[in-house]
Amino acid sequence: MHCIIMAGGAGTRFWPASRRHIPKQLLDITGRGPMVVETCRRLAPLARDEELTLVISREHEEETRRLFPGRGVQIVSEPVGRNTAPCIGLGALYAEHAGAKGAIAFLPADHFIFNTGAFLRALGQAASLAESGTIVTLGIVPNRPDTGYGYIRRDQENIDAEETPAYRVSAFVEKPDLATAKHYLTQGDYLWNAGIFVATPEVILSEIKIHLPDLHKGLERLKSSIHTSDFEREIEVVYGQIASVSFDYGIMEKTKYPLMVVPCECGWSDVGSWASLYDLRREEQDERGNLSEGDSLLIDCEGSFVSSGSGKFVACLGLKNCLVVDTPDALLVADLDKSQEVRKITEALKNTKREKLL
Amino acid sequence: MHCIIMAGGAGTRFWPASRRHIPKQLLDITGRGPMVVETCRRLAPLARDEELTLVISREHEEETRRLFPGRGVQIVSEPVGRNTAPCIGLGALYAEHAGAKGAIAFLPADHFIFNTGAFLRALGQAASLAESGTIVTLGIVPNRPDTGYGYIRRDQENIDAEETPAYRVSAFVEKPDLATAKHYLTQGDYLWNAGIFVATPEVILSEIKIHLPDLHKGLERLKSSIHTSDFEREIEVVYGQIASVSFDYGIMEKTKYPLMVVPCECGWSDVGSWASLYDLRREEQDERGNLSEGDSLLIDCEGSFVSSGSGKFVACLGLKNCLVVDTPDALLVADLDKSQEVRKITEALKNTKREKLL
Repeated sequence: MHCIIMAGGAGTRFWPASRRHIPKQLLDITGRGPMVVETCRRLAPLARDEELTLVISREHEEETRRLFPGRGVQIVSEPVGRNTAPCIGLGALYAEHAGAKGAIAFLPADHFIFNTGAFLRALGQAASLAESGTIVTLGIVPNRPDTGYGYIRRDQENIDAEETPAYRVSAFVEKPDLATAKHYLTQGDYLWNAGIFVATPEVILSEIKIHLPDLHKGLERLKSSIHTSDFEREIEVVYGQIASVSFDYGIMEKTKYPLMVVPCECGWSDVGSWASLYDLRREEQDERGNLSEGDSLLIDCEGSFVSSGSGKFVACLGLKNCLVVDTPDALLVADLDKSQEVRKITEALKNTKREKLL
Repeated sequence: MHCIIMAGGAGTRFWPASRRHIPKQLLDITGRGPMVVETCRRLAPLARDEELTLVISREHEEETRRLFPGRGVQIVSEPVGRNTAPCIGLGALYAEHAGAKGAIAFLPADHFIFNTGAFLRALGQAASLAESGTIVTLGIVPNRPDTGYGYIRRDQENIDAEETPAYRVSAFVEKPDLATAKHYLTQGDYLWNAGIFVATPEVILSEIKIHLPDLHKGLERLKSSIHTSDFEREIEVVYGQIASVSFDYGIMEKTKYPLMVVPCECGWSDVGSWASLYDLRREEQDERGNLSEGDSLLIDCEGSFVSSGSGKFVACLGLKNCLVVDTPDALLVADLDKSQEVRKITEALKNTKREKLL
């Protein structure tokens, strides 16, 4: 099965560990290795290296190639980010060119999945459904009223009764407020949108042709130069012309195909903030809920996450719900509950032209 | 007026800024220069450089001399710390040897005083009283029920009616609990013991002869070698033999002299913790009570003290009452209200033999 790993994210949420030149997907923040490498490893039972295509940002090419030495994984660089629709179209083009048979999977490079078996089963089921000619998403079964995720509302009727359940998608809904999220959880027919989906390259490219014709023209132009010396110049031109648009907005919301969703309980997290990383690493926490890495000493602390990535000795005294991340040139100390606001810092750095720290 | 500056403290309370080799009195933590230099500067209207004697620990000699280039300040090194009684005896010996006339003052090197004028007036008044032959302490008029200071209880009767008030000391009392401290504050006859006092060298040395005869013998032995090449060897021998004892315990509590106290309202602080330093630098705080030094950015923080002494960029987000002190090899993050417990960290470092960080 061919898999397209979308690894173009800029990843400012894990500042100061993540930077422009080394975003989240290239970092080992979970303790399991760099996230993009872990994403590929997770797919190994389904896809050989030659069936994996990483779509990345050109500025990360050197660093990404370093993570896959001597491997057949295909790495495609976008000269600039144009959101997910061009990235997915490019991935479909590459898979088609590589002679991919049947449905292919599109997956973000920077998610955490606890139960790989459950995840791969859902992905395999989605692939079977997608081969009949539609787009099939994975829907994560929620275990809490999370306000940080978009939701997928499903129909009632199970359309794949012989296997595990699968449903028609009745709506994609934006991040809800807490009351709405609680309602979704009790309703039982709402799933988290993990941005993971399966379709054949033909379906993807034909949908792009209908709904994003300019992008389709660009992809047609690129088609003949894949794996030639012209490609880099061509993609530069094409990406200079195409619009920035998300696959959700550009295709998913407009498609006439009957979208489907396969529910999945696999301990998934998009690891969207330091706090969510702290949560998913619960097993590594001490009895007072502290998670510490590197040369650190915690006295009378609770619920805190302390990471010394600079080799420096970090001493913490009497902290509660505190986040400390030390790197060689920047230190972050934050209320762990405010860690999703770390962008306020990167924005301030941008505004004061402190590029080196970004 | 001859002044003895007691600068032998080890100063672990300001870890990681203070270390064994550079204790608090050698640091510029108040923004007014190294504390020992500021202590000398404050005394300038009363004492010429030649009338200032610093009693320090030998391991700090190089660093201390560096702070007084080309100046006539006398620097005397103790080979090991033996608490305050030997330090004060040694200071008295030096003052006597230098031909000091009348009373001399003994002062810690690491205190903060806001109102130098009020302080010097009280010191001058204490000197006049001491010349009649007793020990006169300064008593700081308390403005809050502080549980971190020892107190001096004074008699009711003003014994120096022609000048500003002065009283007989009726008792020295240990650090009280909060209820007791509140009671002291309303009573009105309790003053903070700042460890600052005035007496003639004769009174000091004769009291030592009576109450600490072994120390007196040691000082007699040293007397003839002051300013000779033998001194270093002699003081090594003497300090190897004498007991470690505080002046309060060894002399003050036992003297037959009628101890006196001059009340002083001078904005004094012993700067005993990061929290007390934060308090006394109130004027430098922003409108949300944050005090920051070095390359730092505070977003949505309040009541926090952030010091980047390493040149590193320090970003803080959503902190409350937090202390962040970054140095090149160690970082402290603490609840500011727990900063007096920083010894827990230095003790842990001692126990794990991490000498370089002490």
